[in-house]
Amino acid sequence: MSVSTAASDQSVCTPLAVLGRDVTVPLVTGGEVTYAALDYAASAPALQRVWDDVAAYAPYYGSVHRGAGYLSQLSTDLFENARRTVADFLDCRAGDQVIFTRSTTDSLNLLARAIPADCQVFVFETEHHASLLPWQDARVTYLNAPRTPQQAVETLERALADRDPYGPALVCVTGASNVTGELWPVRELAAAAHAHGARIVLDAAQLAPHHPVSVADLDVDWVAFSGHKLYAPFGSGVLAGRADWLRAAEPYLAGGGASRKVTRREDGGVAVEWHETAARHEAGSPNVIGAYAIASACKALTEAGWDTLVAREQHLVRTVREGLAEVPEVRILSLFGDDAPRVGVLSFVVEGWNSSHFAAALSAEYGIGVRDGLFCAHPLVRTLLGSDPQTQGECGAPEAAPGEKSLNAIRVSFGAGTPDEHVQRFVDAVKELVAEGAKWQYRTEEGRCVPAV
Amino acid sequence: MSVSTAASDQSVCTPLAVLGRDVTVPLVTGGEVTYAALDYAASAPALQRVWDDVAAYAPYYGSVHRGAGYLSQLSTDLFENARRTVADFLDCRAGDQVIFTRSTTDSLNLLARAIPADCQVFVFETEHHASLLPWQDARVTYLNAPRTPQQAVETLERALADRDPYGPALVCVTGASNVTGELWPVRELAAAAHAHGARIVLDAAQLAPHHPVSVADLDVDWVAFSGHKLYAPFGSGVLAGRADWLRAAEPYLAGGGASRKVTRREDGGVAVEWHETAARHEAGSPNVIGAYAIASACKALTEAGWDTLVAREQHLVRTVREGLAEVPEVRILSLFGDDAPRVGVLSFVVEGWNSSHFAAALSAEYGIGVRDGLFCAHPLVRTLLGSDPQTQGECGAPEAAPGEKSLNAIRVSFGAGTPDEHVQRFVDAVKELVAEGAKWQYRTEEGRCVPAV
Repeated sequence: MSVSTAASDQSVCTPLAVLGRDVTVPLVTGGEVTYAALDYAASAPALQRVWDDVAAYAPYYGSVHRGAGYLSQLSTDLFENARRTVADFLDCRAGDQVIFTRSTTDSLNLLARAIPADCQVFVFETEHHASLLPWQDARVTYLNAPRTPQQAVETLERALADRDPYGPALVCVTGASNVTGELWPVRELAAAAHAHGARIVLDAAQLAPHHPVSVADLDVDWVAFSGHKLYAPFGSGVLAGRADWLRAAEPYLAGGGASRKVTRREDGGVAVEWHETAARHEAGSPNVIGAYAIASACKALTEAGWDTLVAREQHLVRTVREGLAEVPEVRILSLFGDDAPRVGVLSFVVEGWNSSHFAAALSAEYGIGVRDGLFCAHPLVRTLLGSDPQTQGECGAPEAAPGEKSLNAIRVSFGAGTPDEHVQRFVDAVKELVAEGAKWQYRTEEGRCVPAV
Repeated sequence: MSVSTAASDQSVCTPLAVLGRDVTVPLVTGGEVTYAALDYAASAPALQRVWDDVAAYAPYYGSVHRGAGYLSQLSTDLFENARRTVADFLDCRAGDQVIFTRSTTDSLNLLARAIPADCQVFVFETEHHASLLPWQDARVTYLNAPRTPQQAVETLERALADRDPYGPALVCVTGASNVTGELWPVRELAAAAHAHGARIVLDAAQLAPHHPVSVADLDVDWVAFSGHKLYAPFGSGVLAGRADWLRAAEPYLAGGGASRKVTRREDGGVAVEWHETAARHEAGSPNVIGAYAIASACKALTEAGWDTLVAREQHLVRTVREGLAEVPEVRILSLFGDDAPRVGVLSFVVEGWNSSHFAAALSAEYGIGVRDGLFCAHPLVRTLLGSDPQTQGECGAPEAAPGEKSLNAIRVSFGAGTPDEHVQRFVDAVKELVAEGAKWQYRTEEGRCVPAV
């Protein structure tokens, strides 16, 4: 990656090289254009560096753990080193475990199965479903959407203080909203949790790709994130943090790798001794390429420098927000208001537009890939839209007709690989669509909004 | 892949091109040699075709499902097409579901969580831990190791007939042993299961890479396999089969993608409507590259032709077995005897040798990667070794001293990418090591046997 000396705030540095940066897509209006991937909050493109590392390793891929061959030992070392790289990236404490999962969703489901049986869980209704839903076997308190970070802390403190019985508790909170991009007061929430004898897990799926995360500084007990949002889309995620509950829990998956010793018992049953390391929850052959890809991304982001990356992304955030502010028909969805610190994730609706049609037009007429829907955060988006909580979800449902209130929103998101041109094209396209209307007709087909031909 | 016209049984065709075929590794005795990857039963190298497909797709990678952009829709189609390719590869019935998991272990853990609450499970003690262990929440009957395929069927029939109560039951059985390579009588076991009102899941982790699998013909209810053993090591596996239990079960992972609609309830709780398709058990962003890699491997194997692949592998199996038969110190581990049909997986011990030292010498002195241990099938290997069931497992335990009875075994395994030279080098190396001893000293260090320097 090349970092130019910033001449002005408008050109802080060049984006990191990502795969797909030269891909062109056809326009329904004729011709082709380079694809503007602006759905990073769902899946980011792979960093070129990550791909190069994976490609360099792939011929050396081998079975890990008990393989006696040279490539097996190399692969085993690579896998275990990836764990250390991730621990460094997250600034973990000594003794913390780094478990490779397949995604944030998987990480939080793992933790949900590892909490003590009498643990109460506290989660804001504003969370992504990955954070909202895994706790169904526990007693869960869903906290109403706060309207300021301070209110979030106060709401949590009150709920924790009032819990009955005053037993083990876990708070699950996002670092940055996957809908508004707004940062949550993680350090303050962690302090509140600990002050009330609770633990806290940070859903860093939207934070880690945009912002440094220090487990030690934030004083969170666990952190979860996904490779596919961190420029390493090879099927791996991470759960990192305190070992005690993880070591005491039943293995997340039962199978080889997690089991140290398996014997038949006298009574005909089977006795199992499980590992107490991260392997306890990683049964089955590990996804070595996925773990290595995450480690590669961690190194690439660290080497690029967070100050540089954050400054550049904030420049893009300003471009988008200032551009959309010039369009009165656009309403940006926000929980904490204009001044809240945020990452490169932003959702909005356009007055008089069906959000799905708007997103389809951005794709078909401008080559811009955004997302429409409720973004796997149904309660939050409905709250922000002010729509009836019983309206249908995002899957295959009819969107509002033009002129009606939107049931869905549009989300634009970007990151370290996004060139200025993509966000500028997006802003210009929004203005043009609102001013001139779409050049084409769109219709919904098999749950997908497509140009009507 | 190129298929030569077979001039004789000795040269049925050339191997399929795999990554790493030109990788050289250093020998402790000096010089370098191309690496002979003979641990396919743990992880097989990627087919060149799979790698090429992944590399061609990677720049087009995008967020799936609700992404409105061109690459998102392309990626969504690619992912859903991968499902259909796998269904074709497995010859699934109409209505069967194909769920992408991360491995066979994951697939069987998913199924274990989907079986009815009162379902009894029947499993032979000879299974891999992935098949042996996931059922701990159910009532499990562990069946003793049979000594013939016929005995396996009779043992199962008796156990199913005698079950009390005569309620829902599931049989889990391997298609090919990960220790002996021997084929299990899957069709007969499926018939026995169904005759007794039970269902059956086939662990095809070791079968699918070596042998065609037809869900319809074998009449199994589910089948599970891993990408990393099927030349597609990108973190995905498969569970395919009957939809009813899967549709009725709680989602395997709770999160986005699996949830169709999430709302706050009047009482402050959260109500969730879950999907009833495969997505129900695939919460979180799917591993698109992993699924696509598996689909690519399925196509490559089908196009190469199973008759050709099986004939070539059987030629390699004969080379190894005939070669080892000339070494009286070698004892091949077998449950069903010399005449049993088998795939390219074979375990053995060498009289007077510590198995870990033998495997280390194959690597360090010949560039051959095999595996030593109990192969995540502890009860089976101990039974075959005749060792005390209470002896330590494979992880970090001291192996037998030279001259003592082996506590571990050595496994050699190969497949569609293995050139004749690799298995010939292996046979020659075994003969030379047994006749002349190792040229180097080995010692165990951090659970790994390495050259003593």
